[in-house]
Amino acid sequence: MPAEYLRPLLIDNGTKIVLLLLDGLGGLPVQPGGPTELEHAATPNMDRLAAEGALGQTVPIRPGVTPGSGPAHLALFGYDPIEHVVGRGALEATGVGLEVRPGDVAARGNFCTLDAHGRITDRRAGRISTADAAPLVERLQTIAVPGVEFSVRHVREYRFAIVLRGDGLSDEIPDTDPQQTGLAPLAVAASQPRAEKAAACYQQWVDRARELLADEPKANGITLRGFGTDPVLPKFHDAYGLRAACVAVYPMYRGVSQLVGMDVIHFGGDTPKDEFAAAAAHLQDYDFFFIHIKKTDSKGEDGDFEGKAQVIEGVDQALPQLLELQPDVLLITGDHSTPARMKTHSWHPVPFLLWAPARALPDQQTRFGERFCALGGLGTFPAIETMPLALAHAGRLVKYGA
Amino acid sequence: MPAEYLRPLLIDNGTKIVLLLLDGLGGLPVQPGGPTELEHAATPNMDRLAAEGALGQTVPIRPGVTPGSGPAHLALFGYDPIEHVVGRGALEATGVGLEVRPGDVAARGNFCTLDAHGRITDRRAGRISTADAAPLVERLQTIAVPGVEFSVRHVREYRFAIVLRGDGLSDEIPDTDPQQTGLAPLAVAASQPRAEKAAACYQQWVDRARELLADEPKANGITLRGFGTDPVLPKFHDAYGLRAACVAVYPMYRGVSQLVGMDVIHFGGDTPKDEFAAAAAHLQDYDFFFIHIKKTDSKGEDGDFEGKAQVIEGVDQALPQLLELQPDVLLITGDHSTPARMKTHSWHPVPFLLWAPARALPDQQTRFGERFCALGGLGTFPAIETMPLALAHAGRLVKYGA
Repeated sequence: MPAEYLRPLLIDNGTKIVLLLLDGLGGLPVQPGGPTELEHAATPNMDRLAAEGALGQTVPIRPGVTPGSGPAHLALFGYDPIEHVVGRGALEATGVGLEVRPGDVAARGNFCTLDAHGRITDRRAGRISTADAAPLVERLQTIAVPGVEFSVRHVREYRFAIVLRGDGLSDEIPDTDPQQTGLAPLAVAASQPRAEKAAACYQQWVDRARELLADEPKANGITLRGFGTDPVLPKFHDAYGLRAACVAVYPMYRGVSQLVGMDVIHFGGDTPKDEFAAAAAHLQDYDFFFIHIKKTDSKGEDGDFEGKAQVIEGVDQALPQLLELQPDVLLITGDHSTPARMKTHSWHPVPFLLWAPARALPDQQTRFGERFCALGGLGTFPAIETMPLALAHAGRLVKYGA
Repeated sequence: MPAEYLRPLLIDNGTKIVLLLLDGLGGLPVQPGGPTELEHAATPNMDRLAAEGALGQTVPIRPGVTPGSGPAHLALFGYDPIEHVVGRGALEATGVGLEVRPGDVAARGNFCTLDAHGRITDRRAGRISTADAAPLVERLQTIAVPGVEFSVRHVREYRFAIVLRGDGLSDEIPDTDPQQTGLAPLAVAASQPRAEKAAACYQQWVDRARELLADEPKANGITLRGFGTDPVLPKFHDAYGLRAACVAVYPMYRGVSQLVGMDVIHFGGDTPKDEFAAAAAHLQDYDFFFIHIKKTDSKGEDGDFEGKAQVIEGVDQALPQLLELQPDVLLITGDHSTPARMKTHSWHPVPFLLWAPARALPDQQTRFGERFCALGGLGTFPAIETMPLALAHAGRLVKYGA
């Protein structure tokens, strides 16, 4: 829940805030004494902003806790992810345009390959192409389960999203993906009695899907993950007085933005320039732009140190285009670290750059990078304090008390 | 209570964590611009670890709060000492091998010297020797109070531990040491009605002890301090999934470790090398070693700046022996500061060094000392976050959320 004490302090002064999020930005050196990905990247524009603004580092969830993408974004948006648990299925379904109402039960679906005994031989159905998978999803859309309503939409490749609507449903259902081959998908089973109806409906749906897919060579099975519902979060406009928009390529990030009340800007392309152009096209419509860059995280997960540095450089090169919009506050940070060396998310504090020419207190740091951020004037702080800092530097918070 | 959100994230990957605690490590310069004890000490090994790892500083309890040893250790172990109040009597009694069950009332006892009017002339009975005091404790062990059971054990010199067991007892009893000479020991008095029975039993015991000691020239009186019981803390293995062991010379530190579920390793000698050898001898039996060095605090309390620095140097010289055990995570810190200049515990933040070659994010600091730690990449953080950081850097926490 965004801090209640902020609400009486909010004013609308017409200022613009941009949160430029490089997913998984934080990194690690690959050799002792060496640079991190961000330190290695040539980032003259970010370095200039670092020199003019203030640096710091955020703790995404709690010290030592490695965040998933959903919790990490919620924290940046000001919602404590320990307090607000959101099933990733709800984020992804929302992100692909399926409506998830409170009480609905959403999930992420994967096509998988089963052998004659029903055991998984490929958890991603040979990474079946989008073109091949789309007609299969259409087939799944025909499944009817009496008394409830299912909505299914393709995401990409082997992945789809699904939403169950009806009375008396609950989302306490563990993943059915056994996480390894050689085992059958798990039954859809409630972990709480109140979720038994939802689990039974989902099991009927899966059984019917198995029949419809029986003759498919690759995608003849289904696993379900990330069961969740709309957690009914306070909306961004109510919490912060901001008309907020999301510019993101991936459904999951659009989904989490929508659950906190942001509009999603639709656009073509997937480069930083495309994303900045999308924001520019709607500059007058919004006060707050959340711009999400995915590929830093993807390259980190691939263990591609150079590739991740190059993505950062690409963002840096496009940055002048974003600065032309003359944001009053520009935040550049990540939702968590994804060090190429670890090939996965990590708990390490995340580099944070705050540029606000009218109001920032500069520090002594002149470059954007982990070691500089550790010495930055904003200190080390919980990610949920990002929004209050943004609002303050935009001049959108009046004095507390007299 | 260690953070509940950690439990679902715990895995056992066989990694080893060492918490090397130099009691009262933090210090102060004795002259303006001068070094602290730690900065003054030659610590080439710790400096190398500082350069390779990450520094920070902990706030033991709350900013400005000077901790006692019990609360300071509880905080490092992840138990908020404001939430969990543990009477030091329970720690010390446990540490000398007396059993303290929930509902028992333990206390620390001091021999003192009384004049003919029953007024204290020496609060420590002339620091009576261990050899002289032991037979007196044996005499006290003969005291019987109807309906309840007392256990008494000598600690050292003028100090002993005592445990009362029976029905309907409670530990809300203030110290009976008036903290100055010229006054009689205070009566044992309950501060809450539910502690009246325990107070009455203790008063009977003290009256009988006075009779038994009446002819002793020095140790003819008793004061009692630190009344407490077993607070029934969640145990280390349940909270963190760690098989944990304590290597400590002093009973009090063994006691607090046992109350959180650590095993105590018994060994001969009292030097850092002896302690490191004790850990080495049980390397395969445990995942977590708490190694306690007392003399930094003792020298600080004595106001011995050089002596404290020399103790630190001694630990540094022995450090290669500890590093041979190849811990995955080595933490070097204190439970609180004991600046020689102040001759007592203080509230100042405590230097913290985290070395974890596989997973630490290095900072720009290259030496271990207060001024370097203040600029470290871990920032300034509450001591209760130590364990989550240790677990994360040992790879023992999986991702939170998806």
